[in-house]
Parts: sequence; C-alpha cells; structure tokens
Amino acid sequence: MGVVVALDENRKEASGIGKLVSLVGPGMERVNELILSKAGSNVEMIPEVANHLISSGGKRLRPMITLAAADMFGYQGEGHVKLATSVEFMHTATLLHDDVVDESDLRRSKPTARMIWGNQASVLVGDFLLGQAFKMMVEVGSLDSLEVLSNASAVIAEGEVMQLSAAKNMETTEDEYLAVIKAKTAALFSAAAEVGPIIASAGKAERAALRSYGLNLGLAFQLVDDALDYGGNAADLGKNTGDDFREGKITLPVVLSYRRGTDEERAFWQSALERGENGDAELEKARGLMVKYAAIADTIQRARHFGEIARDALAPLKPTPQKEALLDVVEFCIARVS
Amino acid sequence: MGVVVALDENRKEASGIGKLVSLVGPGMERVNELILSKAGSNVEMIPEVANHLISSGGKRLRPMITLAAADMFGYQGEGHVKLATSVEFMHTATLLHDDVVDESDLRRSKPTARMIWGNQASVLVGDFLLGQAFKMMVEVGSLDSLEVLSNASAVIAEGEVMQLSAAKNMETTEDEYLAVIKAKTAALFSAAAEVGPIIASAGKAERAALRSYGLNLGLAFQLVDDALDYGGNAADLGKNTGDDFREGKITLPVVLSYRRGTDEERAFWQSALERGENGDAELEKARGLMVKYAAIADTIQRARHFGEIARDALAPLKPTPQKEALLDVVEFCIARVS
Repeated sequence: MGVVVALDENRKEASGIGKLVSLVGPGMERVNELILSKAGSNVEMIPEVANHLISSGGKRLRPMITLAAADMFGYQGEGHVKLATSVEFMHTATLLHDDVVDESDLRRSKPTARMIWGNQASVLVGDFLLGQAFKMMVEVGSLDSLEVLSNASAVIAEGEVMQLSAAKNMETTEDEYLAVIKAKTAALFSAAAEVGPIIASAGKAERAALRSYGLNLGLAFQLVDDALDYGGNAADLGKNTGDDFREGKITLPVVLSYRRGTDEERAFWQSALERGENGDAELEKARGLMVKYAAIADTIQRARHFGEIARDALAPLKPTPQKEALLDVVEFCIARVS
Repeated sequence: MGVVVALDENRKEASGIGKLVSLVGPGMERVNELILSKAGSNVEMIPEVANHLISSGGKRLRPMITLAAADMFGYQGEGHVKLATSVEFMHTATLLHDDVVDESDLRRSKPTARMIWGNQASVLVGDFLLGQAFKMMVEVGSLDSLEVLSNASAVIAEGEVMQLSAAKNMETTEDEYLAVIKAKTAALFSAAAEVGPIIASAGKAERAALRSYGLNLGLAFQLVDDALDYGGNAADLGKNTGDDFREGKITLPVVLSYRRGTDEERAFWQSALERGENGDAELEKARGLMVKYAAIADTIQRARHFGEIARDALAPLKPTPQKEALLDVVEFCIARVS
C-alpha cells in the first residue's frame, strides 16, 4: 500500500535556480544597488551591521520571487524593485532579531552581527531596516501591496513569539509547529510572491495563485531547512549543523522523533532540549533517533506535500519563463535535501 | 527521487473500525438511547424528520471517537455519553442543513428529509437538534467542553458560508479549499476527539494530541470522501456518485484537474460547474480529466499526508486499546478508497 510520490526525472534535472537568476538578473542589480543605498546612514554602525549580513551571501530568493512574479504579468514600472528590496530588508531584519533571540554565534559560516556588535545593535539595526522597508513600500504607493506586506510583518512577529512559547516545550504538536513556520517563514514568501501580481495589476485569481505558491513554497523551504539542520553538511549549509538542537529549537524532526519514541527516549529529548543537555554526544544520539523513527525522511515527505501544492497553485497560469523559473524554485528547495 | 510512504502490511490488515465499535459498544448503546429520547418532541414532525436521518445508517464515527477518547484517559462518569450525543446531533443538524443548501435529493441511498418534509422542516429540525445538543452539553457542566464544542459549532457554520462563496468559483485554490473543509468537517472531528481528554481531566498535552488527531483525521476523511464521489461505487457509498459534480461543488479533485488542465479543459469545467452543464456525458468527461491529471490519486495522497499527521499526534500516548482503535480509524478512512 505504499505510494510512490514520483518527481519526474526531467523535473529533477531542471532543478536549481539558474533560470530565475538569469531572468531577474537586471532587476536584481537594481535591487542590490537599492539595498546598499538604503542600508546607508550617517550613523556609521548602521551600514556596518547591515552590510555584514547583507554581503554574507544569501541567495536573495525572496526578492527574486517578487521580481519574477511582477514580470510574469507584464509589469513595466520600477516599483517591483522597491518592493523586492523591502522584502529582503524585512527578511534581513528578521535574521538580525532571530540571532539575538536564539543567541546564535554563526550564520552562513560567519560570526553573527550580535557577536561582533552586540545584541542591542542587532536589534536596532533590524528595526532600522524594517523602517526603511516600510518607507520604500509607501513610496511605491500601492495600497494593496502595503496591506499584504504590513500584514506579513505582523504575522512574522507573531510567529516568532509563538516559537518562543513553543521553544523548550516537547509537547508541541505538528499542527502547532506548522502554525509557527507558516507565520515565521511562509508568510513572507507568500507576500513576496503576491505583491508581484498586485503591482502588475493582475486579477484576483493570479494574486491567489501567487499567494498560495509563496505560502506553500515557504512551508516546504522551512521544513527542508529543519531537516538539513540535522542531516546536512555544515560546509554546504553555511551554518552549523545541529544549531537547532543546541538552541533547543523544537522543529519537525524533533517533534516526530519525540512523539514516536519510547518513554526513555522522550526523557532524553526532554533533558536535551528542555534542560539544555545538548553536547556533541547528545546530538549524535538525537541523529540516531531520527534515523530510527524516519523523522528526517518524513519531514522531507511533508515538505514535498507542500511543494506539490505550490506547483498546483501556479498550474493554471499561462506558460511563461517566469512561471517555469518559479516552479524550478520548488524543486530546488526540496532537492537541497533529497 | 521517489519516496515511498509505506503503510505496513499489518496496519492495512488491521484497518476497519471493528476494534472501535466493540470497545465503545456499551457506551454507544446509551448514546443511541439518548439520541432517540432527545430527538423526541410533542411536535410530531420533529422525531419523524430527525429519525429519518438518524436511523439511516450512518456509522456514528464522531460519537464513537468521543467515547473512546474519554475512556482512553480512564473517564468513569456518564458525561461522555451526553457529549458524544451532542456531537452526533451537531453532525445531524449539519447534514439536514447541508441538504437544503445543496438541494440534494439523496443521502445514504434514501431520499433526503427535505424531499419528504420540505426545506423548512429540515432547517428547523436541524436547529432543534442543535438546541438539544447545547442543552446536553450544558448539563454535563464542563466549561472547557462547552467552549470547544460551541467554538466548533461557529466554525462549522463559517465553513458552510465559505463553501457557499467558493461554490461555482473555479478559481478556488487548494489552500482556500482546505480552509473550507478544515472548518466544515475537520473542526467537528477535532472537537469530538478533544472533549474526551477534557472530560477525563487529562492534561494539556493529551488535549492537544486528541485535538490534532481529530483535525487531521477530519481533513483526511473529507478528502477521501471527495475522491470517492468521483471514483467510488454508488452502492458502496450510499450516496449518488457524482453528486458533488452535479451540485457544482468545487472539491479537490476538481481544483487539481482545473488547475492542471488546458485552456479548453478549463472552459469545460467552467461550463460544467459554474454554469451547470453537468449531465452524465459531462460527468464522464470530468472523470476522464481526473484520470488524465491524476487528480484522484493526488487527492488521496494529500489525505494520506493528513492521516500521517493524525497518527503522529497520538504517537506519544501510552498504548491502550482505545489508542489502537483510533489509529485504526485513520487507516479505515484512507482504506475506503485505496
């Protein structure tokens, strides 16, 4: 009674974000310029802190999605560049704040901003970037885009607080966990995608398609990220594998291992994640339990489910290079771990 | 890159709700008595209409879940029988109202109440049953149970209205559809399961586990139902196969076929479901398109995803016959169509 969720071989080969990168290349040059200029300030510390993270080699997936989603519907103006930059700033601000909340030492293989400039600077520069993001959105003058992005901003913050409450609580259910990542990660992907058709004055159905695409892509993306944190290779990942474990984060691989475990194994998870006994030996044991209970494989399987929904969300749109590129992003997200 | 979602062979063989039926047999006798007595009234039409549906051979899955979920945590009183009856009345009321809204002629192979006694009687007897349900809940005196069930009642109504707005709109996305069935179907399953631990004074984690179990079981259940309406056998189903199609209901098999189709095929779906050109020839064509786009298979695959979450929700609970029986229900729901 097994069911094979086949991804066509040609889909697999197409995976990668090369198509997206080349399609939105010219737009992204302008985004990158805008990022540098809007992260500037006479307060010297602001560009220092901001650029530390901005230049650390993130893929800038979210702003690329915004550009492609606008181009897809024939957008001709320049507003999408500002919206894309706003989206990236919102993301950067979240990372700065996250690293403070999580007390992270490394991100993308480099010391986090808070390790160099301290927590206060990280919090405040994050706030500065959020402010700049809002200013740019307002300049674009699209009320619908403002609504979508400001709503995402509130939801993300709500998700972070939810995560804070869920942290150290091994009883977190999968539903609760999904609610967290829906808010914390998927909401911004969803907004990044939806503002494309909005600014291009596309119809309701197109907005709904891109919104759903972004949401489900974001869920798949985060689930894969969670799987990678236990199964990936630190060099590839650009972050410490096992970070989530050391920070006591309750992600889906942990939720599944805990729920499927014996009483004794559950006691181990509690001491490791609730009480912080999380050294290398414990990480090894955690990984072993994840293998035993297929927790990584099933996390990826759940990601695949959302990836399929993202694909179907775009299905009715007429074939364009942008659509193809956005579908590749789904494959790319999942292929990172398969 | 395919992933095999294996369901153990022994799981498959165990499927069926026999274990549940025999475990809660004595409790269900009292539920059935209570159903008959509480559907009674001096207003002759009330028991006539109510009993028509009540005696039409539904499986009474929801009240059985409530009983098992209470027994599971050692509940010793009689309150669970009243709560289970309330849950069944809420369900019956929904069916009575649904048949009016959907203008259905048949349910479980019998003419619907509205075909015999008319729409007005169906609406009002539904309201009567809802009223009786609330009276029974209040008698039990558990404020937490009241909160969960009254919340479900509001959410169900909200889901019905959402469905009404989504009906005849082929642009409905999968996310929107899932929101509808989460409210319309899954909320009651979730409440039915959660009141068990509540009345048994079990802890927060146990409540969360049963709530999540019910919610995801409900989603799986409804998705399988939607698949059956296009792929099943009318005699087995006890309802007209193709009902959803004739009523212009936008269910997941339709959403997927539409989104994956060509422009020409989408025009067909629009004329069939939005404009009501939905005779036998169109139903055949619809079925053909569902095969072409694997829409039924993928609907079942989505159901399986939620079934897996329901299983994991219960995983941490200590092994009891009730837990085993509730896990069987998940298999049963999905096996109806596999």
